[in-house]
This record gives sequence, structure tokens and C-alpha cells, in this order.
Amino acid sequence: MDSPAVIGSVTEFTSPTVTVSFQPLGRRGQVPAGISVLEAARRLGVGLSGICGGAGVCGTCRVVVPPEGQDALSPLSDTERARLGDEDIARGVRLACRAFIRQSLQVFVPPESLTASQRTQVEGRQTPVRVDPVVVPADLQLPPPTLSDLRSDAERIRDGLGRPVRLDLEVLRRSPPSLREWGWAVRAVLRGDEVVALLPPGTPLVGVAVDLGTTKLAGYLLNLETGETLASVGAMNPQLAYGEDVMARITYALQEPEGAERLRQAAVEGLSQLVRDLCAQAGVPPEHVVEAVVVGNTAMHHLFLGLPTRPLGLAPYVPVESGPLDVRARDVGLPLAPGAMVHLLPNVAGFVGADHVAALLATRMEEADRPTLLLDIGTNTEIGLSVGGNLFSCSAASGPAFEGAHIRFGMRAAPGALERVRMIEGRVYWETVEGAPPVGICGSGILDVVAELRGAGFLNGRGGWANSDRPPFLSGDNGPEFVLVPAEASGLGRAITVSRKDVGEIQLAKAAIAAGWQILLEEAGIRESDLARVLVAGAFGTYIDIGHAVAIGLLPRLPLDRFEQVGNVAGTGARMALLSRAERERAARLARRVRYVELTVHPSFRERFAQALQL
Amino acid sequence: MDSPAVIGSVTEFTSPTVTVSFQPLGRRGQVPAGISVLEAARRLGVGLSGICGGAGVCGTCRVVVPPEGQDALSPLSDTERARLGDEDIARGVRLACRAFIRQSLQVFVPPESLTASQRTQVEGRQTPVRVDPVVVPADLQLPPPTLSDLRSDAERIRDGLGRPVRLDLEVLRRSPPSLREWGWAVRAVLRGDEVVALLPPGTPLVGVAVDLGTTKLAGYLLNLETGETLASVGAMNPQLAYGEDVMARITYALQEPEGAERLRQAAVEGLSQLVRDLCAQAGVPPEHVVEAVVVGNTAMHHLFLGLPTRPLGLAPYVPVESGPLDVRARDVGLPLAPGAMVHLLPNVAGFVGADHVAALLATRMEEADRPTLLLDIGTNTEIGLSVGGNLFSCSAASGPAFEGAHIRFGMRAAPGALERVRMIEGRVYWETVEGAPPVGICGSGILDVVAELRGAGFLNGRGGWANSDRPPFLSGDNGPEFVLVPAEASGLGRAITVSRKDVGEIQLAKAAIAAGWQILLEEAGIRESDLARVLVAGAFGTYIDIGHAVAIGLLPRLPLDRFEQVGNVAGTGARMALLSRAERERAARLARRVRYVELTVHPSFRERFAQALQL
Repeated sequence: MDSPAVIGSVTEFTSPTVTVSFQPLGRRGQVPAGISVLEAARRLGVGLSGICGGAGVCGTCRVVVPPEGQDALSPLSDTERARLGDEDIARGVRLACRAFIRQSLQVFVPPESLTASQRTQVEGRQTPVRVDPVVVPADLQLPPPTLSDLRSDAERIRDGLGRPVRLDLEVLRRSPPSLREWGWAVRAVLRGDEVVALLPPGTPLVGVAVDLGTTKLAGYLLNLETGETLASVGAMNPQLAYGEDVMARITYALQEPEGAERLRQAAVEGLSQLVRDLCAQAGVPPEHVVEAVVVGNTAMHHLFLGLPTRPLGLAPYVPVESGPLDVRARDVGLPLAPGAMVHLLPNVAGFVGADHVAALLATRMEEADRPTLLLDIGTNTEIGLSVGGNLFSCSAASGPAFEGAHIRFGMRAAPGALERVRMIEGRVYWETVEGAPPVGICGSGILDVVAELRGAGFLNGRGGWANSDRPPFLSGDNGPEFVLVPAEASGLGRAITVSRKDVGEIQLAKAAIAAGWQILLEEAGIRESDLARVLVAGAFGTYIDIGHAVAIGLLPRLPLDRFEQVGNVAGTGARMALLSRAERERAARLARRVRYVELTVHPSFRERFAQALQL
Repeated sequence: MDSPAVIGSVTEFTSPTVTVSFQPLGRRGQVPAGISVLEAARRLGVGLSGICGGAGVCGTCRVVVPPEGQDALSPLSDTERARLGDEDIARGVRLACRAFIRQSLQVFVPPESLTASQRTQVEGRQTPVRVDPVVVPADLQLPPPTLSDLRSDAERIRDGLGRPVRLDLEVLRRSPPSLREWGWAVRAVLRGDEVVALLPPGTPLVGVAVDLGTTKLAGYLLNLETGETLASVGAMNPQLAYGEDVMARITYALQEPEGAERLRQAAVEGLSQLVRDLCAQAGVPPEHVVEAVVVGNTAMHHLFLGLPTRPLGLAPYVPVESGPLDVRARDVGLPLAPGAMVHLLPNVAGFVGADHVAALLATRMEEADRPTLLLDIGTNTEIGLSVGGNLFSCSAASGPAFEGAHIRFGMRAAPGALERVRMIEGRVYWETVEGAPPVGICGSGILDVVAELRGAGFLNGRGGWANSDRPPFLSGDNGPEFVLVPAEASGLGRAITVSRKDVGEIQLAKAAIAAGWQILLEEAGIRESDLARVLVAGAFGTYIDIGHAVAIGLLPRLPLDRFEQVGNVAGTGARMALLSRAERERAARLARRVRYVELTVHPSFRERFAQALQL
């Protein structure tokens, strides 16, 4: 252990204050020189992972300080040299618990080193777009009516614009008092040849982009003139009350009287609250929001719009509408500007929706010059593959295990969920969401558990127990259970364990996903090793330990540097489509170009699925 | 009296049966030869006027039998020769009570010879249009989805049409069960690049045209493929409960909380019921109505659409929208096909609305090669003048006197209303709506009364009584009253009379109208005698006795053959716009071309109004 010596050497100074900033979070503050980067992160409220408590054994607190900034830190320790590869060291990777601060510096925190709660705040990968939205402002100063100028309000606006535009009925209904109150100065918002809003002069143009997920909603408020994101908010999908996954909700919509309408209202209420929260955060009245983009999987798209989902629930699972769609916000119940429209990106198929198209858009998959795989792991895992300009997509029915469902102690990534687990020298290390006492296991945690159990020899390749006749196993009702958290450390008052059945759920989920990308590779005629890049998207994809996912065969067996955790790229794609007409057109072309592969009827599916059950 | 002789000569025959048809009503039936045309009309249920009870003295039962059909009638009697002018006789005019039927024949009944209740059934003048509506059908037989054809329903329709159309959200919402129920055969209804309805295969395309009057609604259901009118219905405007005229309703909308919304709902309920009635009459489900056209004055237009009417109620009285407008039927609350649109013809000014534009359209005013005047007399009287390709329009605030309001015994043209009055040799003859016992006087009746009183010397030019100190005058609370119907003949149990104040109301109304057309003539630089034609439109214009209207100066002093009672041309214009895109474009051009003349600020108005008070 070399750290005490370094601390000793630093305490010889008079502890001067230095400034540390953590990127890309933008958290910045002053700390005394000499403390570790991990300690500085804790003092500044940065949720940096540190599963072994700063003992230098887990390696989860990796941060990056580029070579030119390394002088601001203590020299590379032996522990770090042992834990980090040469390539990492060359990039400036450090273990935050082993790197002590000498001078002011900037520290880059990779997403995988953030705790889950903080990771949700990290945006998806950004792709630059030229700001050219479908709505444009026109600032008018109109002459007031007189007995010698009896033009109607609308005619006055048309003459002011010099174009024969239409005014939406709701805009017309509200215009007369506004125009008179504003002294006939007005900011008209045009969408094609229609005026969709009249705003007070000087009002910035804003729009909302939403990723309507089965579990989570992510919303962004953007300035449509600058492209700036003014606010971002996450929330749970209120439809969860009616079923955890897509099929449960489709069933509910079909079988319950008013079920579809109840689901529609739940989605609308969720999105409306999201809009209100975004607007409150940015200090913008919702009625100033002049355009929205919504992406979601096909079922969410249909349930939100009030389109029948029966065809989605029965073979051959066709959508009602797969093309891009513009609907009036008021027709779908969203509280935006009176005439505002909502644009829905196109769907590809019954289980490959607009969220996947948005992800393809944001990751520029169609421009990839080498084979690239994109996965958004969830209850349905959408997988895209780009090879030589061809796009292939499929949907794998991975089920809700990675969202904590069907796992005995499973839970969402809420406070107290084990989100990261390591077994080091026979000891179980864990970290919970927000550091709360452990009460369950979330998706990234259970993935860690299975990979570590397999690595430590407690699981065989078929998912059966090995060496389960002694602690840390206890005997449960249905056989041995592995104790992750003993009763005395658990927030539940009893041990948190993993059963054979829990492992089986993860095997099923990972087999569905692995069979999916394997069949896409087969369709494209390439091998696993041909993949130049693998983009892992979505909230769960951001949380997971890629190494573990590769280890259990969930992801292709490739060097880790070919993977990139890209975050909520569906949300990014939605924002791009909000800012740019060209991106909307690109999305429409993308959806038509994708070759959709239906896994359930694919001749290789059964065999590949069976093989992929192996850990 | 020559009639008994003729009857005698006819009874020598064995009373063979002949067929008589009355046009343009289309009433046709068999009657015994030898009876009068008036008697035949009564037997066949044709409401032919006959105010003197067939005595040959009133001249109100004029009918036309073209010269080639005159042989089927008894020869022209002396009475007819005395009552009819040479020109009338040359055209084949006969008095129905003096013309006896010898052989089968066709009789043409001019509108002025019909009783009011039957006259409302007579359509406005028809102008031929090429059927080319804004909605077009496309009959598709689509392939059903299979595992090898996973296109969405919408994509399937687009591919079937071979065009990248949009589907309205409500159409999408309802399409999946319909397409499957109809075995993928469907009639798609296109409006531009949007599908506004999906109908069962073979369903005829129908649309609705509505004249939304301040007092009355007139609706027509049309086949949009053949142009045929399938049903027509009239109804009262339910907004009457909130005020009789436009200004009363604007005031109500401004002063009552929720007043505007209540008026909007009343209009919507009235139109919805009209649509249901039209559909019931033609056996068409309302959800098969794929397009509507609504015309009305600017205030009705605004109240129906929920546009603020405050600017209409305050100088300078500008509309919110004057251009043509397309709104979704569901956005305005009409129960048509889910995606159907409602087209509103353009308005000209605050008090010259889309109904006037429709009337200009239907009468082809802009094509008149000689000076032509068009009047639609009502609470507001819209007046149009066409001179050498230039169109002038104004609105005269004539008030509701011609609708029976502000007249002591005034009433609408409901059963028992005196609708026609003649004074012949000191005796008062009258006719009531549906022949019911007299209970009041409607507009055409009061116009007759004033003209006849003036003609008989009971009124002087200033509207004061003359010779009012003896019967048929009685002494009322506010001076002498002329007895129209003595108590013993009245359905009220007391005499129906006319007071000096009643006469004054008519003077005010006719002065407003006369000042209006005089100022238009002045603006166009022509004289009264230059007018080649005067078109008298609207329900009231259809009922009135043109000769009387000329006599009191309501209409220009011109030979009667220059007048034409054209009926509800606003409704005709609405139907034309329903059937033809070209007519919609023509209406839009018309509205822009019209030179609107604001009477209230016109320098000649006061003087002309004062002069026109003279009877």
C-alpha cells in the first residue's frame, strides 16, 4: 500500500485550496490539496463509484486525466499500475482512490464510473446538427385597424408576412386579445404555410423532445433558435400501473373495457407532467412550446396516440402506422402552444419503433464505414447492425429481468438497489443506488452477480450451482441461494440472495439478446470478430459493466475498446429531429431503408437461442 | 262573372280524369277535368295562394302555363284580362281560380304565388357547376398482412394509392377494425394529400352544405359524385334563445360569463341536429359525410367557430378572419366522418359575411354584363351591386321588424301569421301560414299592410294616419290602430291591429335598406333606372310582394320584370362550393374583389336615410 506515504508527503504543505472540476457533469468546486480524487468527488457531490471503499481493489473508480494534466496528481501508484492496462495508462486513466490532488485540475468521469442515480443525468451521445427546425419565427409590427383599414386580424398578419398563410383555428381563437394587448407587435410562428402560434414579441422559440419509454420518460426542452438544451427531466411512465412490459399493456388494452383509453390517458398525463416540469425548470410557459417530437417503441407510439394495439398483439404484429406522423398537440392532449404540432418519428415494425429509428439517427449508423452494432437493452431489446451501408434491425424479447422483474430480490435502480457487485478474493463488495442500505438488486447488479459468480466458479456454464454446500450459500425453499448481503447488513432485516431461478431469468434474457445480434450478423454475412464497434445504448446499457456483459455472452466477445456506452441516443435522436428538418427526412429514409428481421420465424433462432443460454 | 258558365259547359262532359303536375314543386296527381287550377292545387296539396278565396279579385293565385299548354285550360276570362297586364298574358300567366282544366297539363307556380310554408321548400336559384369536389374517392383492394408482408395498415393504403398520403389521426384510430371487417376492400377518401375517411366499399361520397342564418338554418346533403341534392332541411337557429339579432348576440357573448361558449354550443347543436336530420332523410350515417361547407354572416361564422366577437362589436368592426378557412369537423364539434373537414367561405367585412359571398357566387354577380343589384333582406340586409365587372357591397342595419320583431302583433312566419294582406274595395283580405286562424303578422304581411294602407290612403307619406277617426280604426292606448282582423275572426280572441309605431318600425327598416342600395349606386356612379336586374334573395325576399316593396320604396322604382326572387342563394352558393374546387377558388377571389362600403361613415348616409323614411 503506497497511499499513506503520499498523504504523508502532502500534509507537509499547508494544505492549499485547489479547484477541481468534474466533466462532463460540469461539477466544480474548491477542495484542500492532498485529498484523493475520490474524496474530492464525494465532497463536491459527484456520484463516483468506489465499491471497495477506497481500498484500491475493485477498480470501479476509474477516471481520466489527460497526460498534460497528470502533473496535478500524485504519480501513478503501484496499485494502479497493477490494475490498469498499458493502453488505459497511456490515455490517462487513474483510480480515483489512489490519485491524490496536488494542483487544480479537470477530471473526466466515464459513464461506467458514475453511480446509477448520477448516470441518469448524463446525456446520450451528442451528434452535431445544423439548427433548422420545422417552425420559424417572424417578428411583425402590424398597423392597428381603423375605419379606413378594415382588414381582419388574420389578413393583417398575412399581409405582414407577405405570404398567404393559414392560421390554425385555436390560434385564431386566441389572437384578437393578444394582438391588442401587445400593441400589434407579435412573433408569428410558422410551420410550413400555417401559423401555429402567436407569441409576445421577443419570446424565444422552444420545443420539446420526448423519449417515451416503456418504463421511463425522458424529456428535453430546447431553444429552437440556438439548439441549446434548456432543461431535461426524467420520469417514470405512469402506464407502469397497468403492466410492466409492452405485451402486458397490449393485453390490458385488449381485455379491459376502456383499457386502451386508460393507457392513453396515463401516457398523456405522464408526458403532460414532463412538459410542465421541463417548462418550470426553464421558466417557460407551456403554451410557448411550439413544436414537439416524440419517439417510443411502436406499442408506446400507438398507445399514446390512441391507435388500436390489437394488430400489434396478434401475429403478424403489424403497426397501424409506420410512417412519420404530424398530429396537433391538442388532438393528443398535450398542453403546448394552441396550434403546436407533435412530430412522431417513423416506426420500422411492430416491435422496432421510432425510438430505434431515433437511435440509428443519433448514432449515424447508416454512415458507419465498418460493421457496427447498436443495442438498446430493455424489456424489448432493439438491435441494429450497419454493414457496408446496409441496415438490419430486429427486436429481441429479452423480458423484464434486466429491469429487476421476475428476480426474487429484483428491483428498479431506486435507492438501496445493489447496482454494482464484485467478488474479490472470496469477499462480496457492493454499491447501492444513492448509498442507501441494500434492499434489492437492480439490472446492472444482477448482471454483475451472475458474471462474478460464474467467474468465481460458483456457477457452471449451464447456470447450475457449484460448491453450493457451504457459505456463502444458505438453503432456501427451492434449493441453495447465494448470499449477497447478510441479514445484518441488509436494509430488509434478512439476507439478500440469488437463486438458481434468478440466474435462469438472466440466462433467458441474455440468450434472447445474443440470438438477436447473432442472427443479424448471419443475415449480413459477417462474423462476430468483424464488428468494429458495438454501441450500447439506453439507461440499462449505460449502467452495466461491459466486461461482465461480454463475459456472460450478452455482448459479442470483443476487445473492450470496441464498445461504447452511448446513453439515451433515442432521446438524442428526438432532439435532433426537433432541431432539424433534414434530420426528420433522414429518419424517414432510415426507417424505410432498414431491413427488418423477424426473429421468431427465423430458421436459426431456436438453435442460436438454445446455445446462447450457456453462460 | 263568367266562371259559372264555364263550369256549366264543362259539367256536360263525363268528368274524365286528367293529370296535373305543379312545377317546380314536382307535385303531380290526377284530378277530375273541369275543376279550377286553384282547386286542383288544393286537392294535390300544393300551397297556392288565393287570398280572396277564389273570387277573382286579389290576383295572388297567378300561375304560368306556357302558350303551348294553354289549350288544356279554359280560355282567358274577362277577369283575368282585367287583372293581368299584356306582358303577363303573353307569358301565359293565368289566375288559378279562373282557369279551368280541360286536359292533362303542367302548371308553373312562381314563388310569390306559394304560401309561405310551401315556399320554404323551394330551393334557391340553381347555377350549374361542374362536379369536382375537394374530396375524391379511391377504391382499393389491399393484400392482408402476412409474416412476409409486415407493412403497417397505413403503408398498405399508401402503397394501394401509389401516393405518399397522410392519414388523419382519427382515421388511423378507426382504420384497423374496419379494414379487417371489410376484408381489406376499402373506399379511401382523399382531400389533397390527406386521407380524411375510410368508407366501406361502394359507399357513395356525400357532403353537407349549410347556410347558418341568424334566424334560420338551411342544410343540404349532396352526393359529391353526381352533384345530386339528396336531402334538404330547414331549422331555427337555437342561438335565438340568446338574442334575436346579431348585435344582441355579440352583446350577450361579451357581457355574459361563458356567453360566447354558450352561443357556440347552441350553433353547434343546431348544425349537428341539422346534419342528423339530413342524414336520416337520406338514409346516410352521419359518419359517412366526408366534407361540409358552412356559410353565414360574419358574426355567425365567428360564433360558430368560437372566434372572439369583441372586435365585431366595437368600431371599426373588423373580423378575426376574413379568408377562406378549413377546419376539422371534430374541432368545431360537428358529427361527420372522423377526419372530415369543414370549409368556410371567406367573409368580406364585419357585417358582410360568407353568406353574401355565397350569394354573389350563386348569382354569378361578377359576370353580370349590365348593372345588377342583389339584396338579401334580413336583420342585416346585405346588398351587392355589380357594375361593369366591379362589385360593391354594404350591409344595412335594417333591424328585425321584417322578422316580426318590434311590431305589436308581429311574429315569425309560423302557422296563423298573416303572410299576405290585400285591401280591395275597402275590405281587408288576408291569408295565414298554413291557413290557421290568424294570431299575428309576419314580415311579408306587415310589408303588405303598410303598402296597402298607403295605397288606400290610410297612411300619408310620412307614415302618419289619415282618416283614422272611424272604422276600420279603433282607439288604442297610443292612438288609433287599424284593425286587420276583427276580434271575432282572430285566433287570439281580440282584434289584430297595426299601430303608428308599427308603421314607424317598417319605415326605419326600409329607410336603412333603401339608403344602402342608393349609396352603392352612388359609389358605382349609376342611377336607379340604370339597373337592369334586381335579385331579391333570402327567405323574406321570397315571401314578399315585390310590387308592394317597390311601392313603399324598399326596392328601386323599376318595372316588375326587372326583379327576380332568387330564394336562398346563400345556400345555393354553399352547395356550389361543396361540389366544386373551382367555385371555392372563385369565392375566395370574389371576397377579395368586393369593394366594401361602410355605410355608417358614408357622407351621404344621413341624408339618404332621412329621405328614405318617406313611404
